[in-house]
This record gives sequence, C-alpha cells and structure tokens, in this order.
Amino acid sequence: MKLKLFGISVAFMLMLGSQAARGQTAQPDIIAKQHVFEAPSFSFQNGRTIRNLRFSYETFGTLNAAGDNVIFLPRSYSANARVAGKVTPADAAAGVWSGLIGPGKVFDTEKFFVVASSSLAALPTGDRNTVTTGPVSINPDTGKPYGGSFPIYTIRDMVEADRLMLQSLGVKKIHTLFGVSMGSMQGFEWSVTYPDMVARHIALLPMPEADGFLTAWMNTWSQPIMADPNWAGGNYYDKTPPTAGVVQALNVIHLHQRNRSFGAKDGRKPAEGSVNPSNALEGRFATEDAMIKASEARARIFDANSIVYGARAMALFSPGGKATLEEAFAPVKASTLLIPAKSDILFFPAYADNARDVLVKLGKKATVFAIDGDGGHFDGVFKIGQALPAIQAFMAE
Amino acid sequence: MKLKLFGISVAFMLMLGSQAARGQTAQPDIIAKQHVFEAPSFSFQNGRTIRNLRFSYETFGTLNAAGDNVIFLPRSYSANARVAGKVTPADAAAGVWSGLIGPGKVFDTEKFFVVASSSLAALPTGDRNTVTTGPVSINPDTGKPYGGSFPIYTIRDMVEADRLMLQSLGVKKIHTLFGVSMGSMQGFEWSVTYPDMVARHIALLPMPEADGFLTAWMNTWSQPIMADPNWAGGNYYDKTPPTAGVVQALNVIHLHQRNRSFGAKDGRKPAEGSVNPSNALEGRFATEDAMIKASEARARIFDANSIVYGARAMALFSPGGKATLEEAFAPVKASTLLIPAKSDILFFPAYADNARDVLVKLGKKATVFAIDGDGGHFDGVFKIGQALPAIQAFMAE
Repeated sequence: MKLKLFGISVAFMLMLGSQAARGQTAQPDIIAKQHVFEAPSFSFQNGRTIRNLRFSYETFGTLNAAGDNVIFLPRSYSANARVAGKVTPADAAAGVWSGLIGPGKVFDTEKFFVVASSSLAALPTGDRNTVTTGPVSINPDTGKPYGGSFPIYTIRDMVEADRLMLQSLGVKKIHTLFGVSMGSMQGFEWSVTYPDMVARHIALLPMPEADGFLTAWMNTWSQPIMADPNWAGGNYYDKTPPTAGVVQALNVIHLHQRNRSFGAKDGRKPAEGSVNPSNALEGRFATEDAMIKASEARARIFDANSIVYGARAMALFSPGGKATLEEAFAPVKASTLLIPAKSDILFFPAYADNARDVLVKLGKKATVFAIDGDGGHFDGVFKIGQALPAIQAFMAE
Repeated sequence: MKLKLFGISVAFMLMLGSQAARGQTAQPDIIAKQHVFEAPSFSFQNGRTIRNLRFSYETFGTLNAAGDNVIFLPRSYSANARVAGKVTPADAAAGVWSGLIGPGKVFDTEKFFVVASSSLAALPTGDRNTVTTGPVSINPDTGKPYGGSFPIYTIRDMVEADRLMLQSLGVKKIHTLFGVSMGSMQGFEWSVTYPDMVARHIALLPMPEADGFLTAWMNTWSQPIMADPNWAGGNYYDKTPPTAGVVQALNVIHLHQRNRSFGAKDGRKPAEGSVNPSNALEGRFATEDAMIKASEARARIFDANSIVYGARAMALFSPGGKATLEEAFAPVKASTLLIPAKSDILFFPAYADNARDVLVKLGKKATVFAIDGDGGHFDGVFKIGQALPAIQAFMAE
C-alpha cells in the first residue's frame, strides 16, 4: 500500500460532513484490510490501452468456497475504497459506511466478504489511502504523469477494472452490489453487462442513465477547472495547480450535494472578518464562506483532472451503451432496490421511479424506497437509517 | 429613448425561449409606449449617492383620475421594461407577457394602466430597449463608466427607484403588483415597506427572502465572472470584456432556470462538428453545446457587472431588512397570490408555502397556486396559462 504522507485521513469526513459517523454503535471500530490490485495493462472502451493498472481496494470478512458471499461497493464520485472502520486504530475517523459494515450489521462481516474499490481515477489522490490509476499517475512510456493525455474513461471501464480485481480474488458472484451515486451507475452497468454476476443491486442515490440535464451540469463541474489558466490542458503536475478553478467546481458540487438545508440558518450574515457584502463586491456571506472553506479543504486532497474525468464518465453514461433503458435492462437478472433522496436536486427521485417502472415492465424485480428529508443528495448518507429495514428485507430475499 | 444600435430586439426571446409567445391570441400586437425616467440624484441603502439616475419604463393604457388603476411589473433578474406587444410593428418578437397584457386580457389595458420598469442595473444593456443606470453607465463625476465602483444595490433600492418613477406619473396606489422571480422580491419589499400602496401582489416564482442556499448559489453565478482575468475588478469597458466568465455564469443560470426538461432528448449525443467526448476532454455533447450557444447569445447582450450586481442584490434580500418573515410581514396590507413552479430547483415551492403560512398566521390574505410541470423556473413563463383562472379570480376580489 502506497502511503502518501501529504494526505490526511479526514478527507471523507470533510466530504461527507461531520454527522457521517451517525448510526455507528459503541462497538470498537473494525479494522479494514487494504490491498492493491495490479494488472500489466488495461484497455479502455474508447480503444486506448495503458500499461501498469494499479488501484487500492479494501476488504472485510472472508470469501467463502463458492466465491459468492460478496458485497461489493464500487467507488462513488469523490470517494475511494476507504468505506468502513479504520485502517489503524489511531485513525481520526472511521469510514462513512461504518454503520452498515461490521459484525452483525446489515453487511455482516462475519457472513459476507465485503469489498470496496478505488478503481480508476479516484478523486482524493492527496489522501494517503488512495491508490488509483488516473491522470496523476506516471505513464511508464514517458516517465511523466499522464495529465490531460490520460484516456477518457467510462462507467463501463470502471466495471471492467473492478471485474479484473474481483476475478483475481476468486469472486464468482456478487450477493449484493451496493452502489452509491456514481457507484449506482456502475451497479446498473454490472447488472446489464454481467447479469449472471449480480444477484442483488442496491442503487443508493441512483442515476440509471445520464440525461442531457446531468450532462450539461457536468460541464459546470469541469469548466471552472478547464478555464483556469493553471490547468494548462491538464498538465500542471510540475507547476501551480488550478486551485481556484477546483474551488469553484467544488462549490457547485457542494450545493448539488446539499440542497436547501445548507446554510438555511444565518446564511446571509456577513462572514466573520469579511467586508460587508452590502458595501463591496469582495464581501462574503457566512454561507458562502463556509462553502468556500469546505471546497478549499477538499481542493487540498482532490486532483483537478480527476474531477474533470469523473464528470465526463458520468456525462457519458448509458447502461450497456444502449439508447433506451428498455433495451439496456432487457438482460438484467438482479433484483434491484432503488433508494433516492426525495430532495435531491440532481439525481431526482423521478429517475429511480422510471428505472423501477422499466425493470418491472420487463418482468424484473425492482422496488423504490425514497429517503425523506430536505438535505438533498447527502440525505442518502446521513439519513440512510431510514432505509435499513428495506435493505435488510431486500437482502434476505 | 436612447437606442443602442448594437442591441437586438430578440434578447428576451433568447432569454425565455421560443415558446414565450404562447398564449397570445391572433389579435394584432399592441404597441408599447416607452419612456425614460430621470432624477438628478439617487441615494442607495448602503449610504452611497449617485447623480443622474435614468431608466426606461413601458406603459399601456391610461392612468385614471384617482391614480389607482395601476398594474406594476418590476423587472426580473435578466429582463428590462420590455414586457408586452411591440415597440414598432416591425419588431421581430412581442414581449413575453403579451398573453397577459392587452385589451380584454387578464391585465386589461382598456381598464388598467400597466407599467413595467427597467430600474437599476438591468442586465441586457446590449438590447436597444434598455435604458438603465448601472455599472455600465457613465459616472458624471469622472466621465467614465462606474464599473466596479457602482454602489452595491438592494431590492429595496429597486423599489425606491421605481417608487420615484411611479410618483412622477401620479400613481397613488398599485391595484396589482405582478412580480416575477426577482420581481417577486420587490413585490414583498413593496408590500412590507409601503403597505398602503399595494392592494394585490401576485408573486410569480416567488422568493420571499434569500436563504443561505440562494446566497451560496449566487456565488456560483458571480465567481466565474469575477475569476475571469478580463473582469479586472469590473473595469473592463474600454478593454476585452470577461466573456468566457459570463458564458460560464449563464450556463449555471440556464440550468437553474430549466430543470431536467432541458436536453432530456438526445442530450448525450456528441454535438455536431465536435470531437467525440468519449475521446477527448474538449469534446462537447449536444446539450452542452445548446446550453453554451444560448449563453453565448445572451453574453452578447448582458453586461457582466450587472450579472454580478444583480446576484448580490438577490443574495442580500430580506424583506424590510428583518430577521424573520414573521417580523417582516407584520405591516402587509396587500392580498398575496403566490405562484411557484413545482419543479423549480432554486426558487422552491416550499418557500411559497412558507410565506403563505406566515402571512395567513398574521391574519393576511394569501394563497398558493403551484404550476405543474418538469420545466423548472421557466414553467412560470411557459405554463402561466395554468394560473390564469387563479389570477383572474384574485384580481376580481
């Protein structure tokens, strides 16, 4: 495991907020096993090939002889394989899914082999727990980081990278795929492309396909970075990185993740130490300041190119590359539990309902459980407790 | 009336989409009367004073002797006083509210004196129908445009500027204030500050006060412009304007206005003439391309500083400067009809419900009529037909 000394382990708490540990019991933290998968080469959907694929994954529990007691967590947009418990007991914070993963928990580590992946181009390259192959990696052909020459990757590419890793472990079948947000896209792609490999798919904050609205928003996540002169076509690793652009991009992402629960209180007060925004354009409101500071903290850990490449992967997503969900979902064998957040302003609950309707019409098993709240996308994390009985029932089927 | 030759009259059709003329009958277009209001000086809420306030307003019909048959339309964020009919019969397009304003229409110009204002710092300074005092105006003290030295203005300042204009016409009382989006903020401010002046307030796409969520989003409208090196602190009028920043800002604004109806069809196809986005970061999707081209068209007409100043005015808004709506709404005498769009992702219907609840609790008359649809904020324009019976009933009370 490559340790990056400049990384900090609170990356995911910053990302997901301080309430993330909710739902954990008073039990001692479980210890995650970290590993690195390596393959001599990897071919992307767009025809390009790279040498030396490497990414970290995390496991809990033991694979059974049949190779089918597997719970798999593909990575979500801004995350890596760091999902539950701690790596060492001294770590400041436990993984965000610690409430779900552990002995006797919903994803019972005494019964299941739980695997989480850092896959391709994970964003938090400044976190010491991230090993991932992406723009920041050294291209063995040039001895320099890929930068903007890294191949555009797709959700299907993430699935293929993870499939190689799971195969290397002897996994035959995924009992439950728990895909969160961008992870749900991978879940749909898995169910469509490898229908015999996936028995159950829990799509939390699901996005069954990118529509034009998502595609257009992805532009607003990428453009502030690509417009920053320091981006330099993605080749900034030996220069000043495009931090201002990254902060702007993360501001938009932040608001997409939060909905109006964010800053509802005292939001329009001037920020401490700021000129009054009534008097000067450079004045800052308290909410604005909180958002910018959160983005600045994430910007210290997130790689600019990886934000851009990840946004592109989401914008390109259609399961199985098919034009319609009806065509795409025809081969699916998995049962699907879709868990949208009612107040999500980007991954709308209507998308989940539509996917359920298409699956059911095709004779598949699919249900929706929607999380109540006004916290937007993040309700999928902070209010996951609402969905636990539905998840338990679904896994017992 | 100052005519800007480089302006184009289709500004508002671009802004509001091609369906804007819907709801118009086959009657010939009415002709709007355009005027310019002038005052020797104007004092802002933050204490600053400017000389030579000038802005255009548009009228239809005739003021009665009592001065109380007035329907007033304060300007919305990206609009000016151009609201209905045409200025000359040769104009390419009629104003967006042509379906509502005219002889025998809901705002019956044979009965009412209809007034619309360009007020302070209207955005479309490149439109020949805009006269407005804002950053682009010449500061008589320096002989140069104000640029970034223009005073930060507030919703209250817009109300004061309009009040001077209405007073100059002999208006004693507003029968119905029709405030759209940012115009609804002015409607709330009017009702709170001049309760005896407003009999009825129709708040279309209402925002009763800025919460922290809106305030933070306003940062994402301003930052792309302020981060563009060509912005130069707002002093770009004799140089290259910050067009790239304006396009980025307008992209975000565009998506806020549209919701997921935008680009739902064929959105993730590559744009015509673009590299395939699967192969290169500079590749563009069809939706992205449509959004960017719409923003580029608006960028030719909209002043960058005015976008920034308008966003600040919205972020600063609390009616009457009060901390809570309960305090703010205490003096209100107007009846209020709140018309949110159900799928609005920024001006949430919940805000309208909350304002109604507060008003009713205080013993005021207030009702909500929510427009159905998946078109977001723009449903308030394109689907206003749904609300016409409610508006008619409200005006007859």
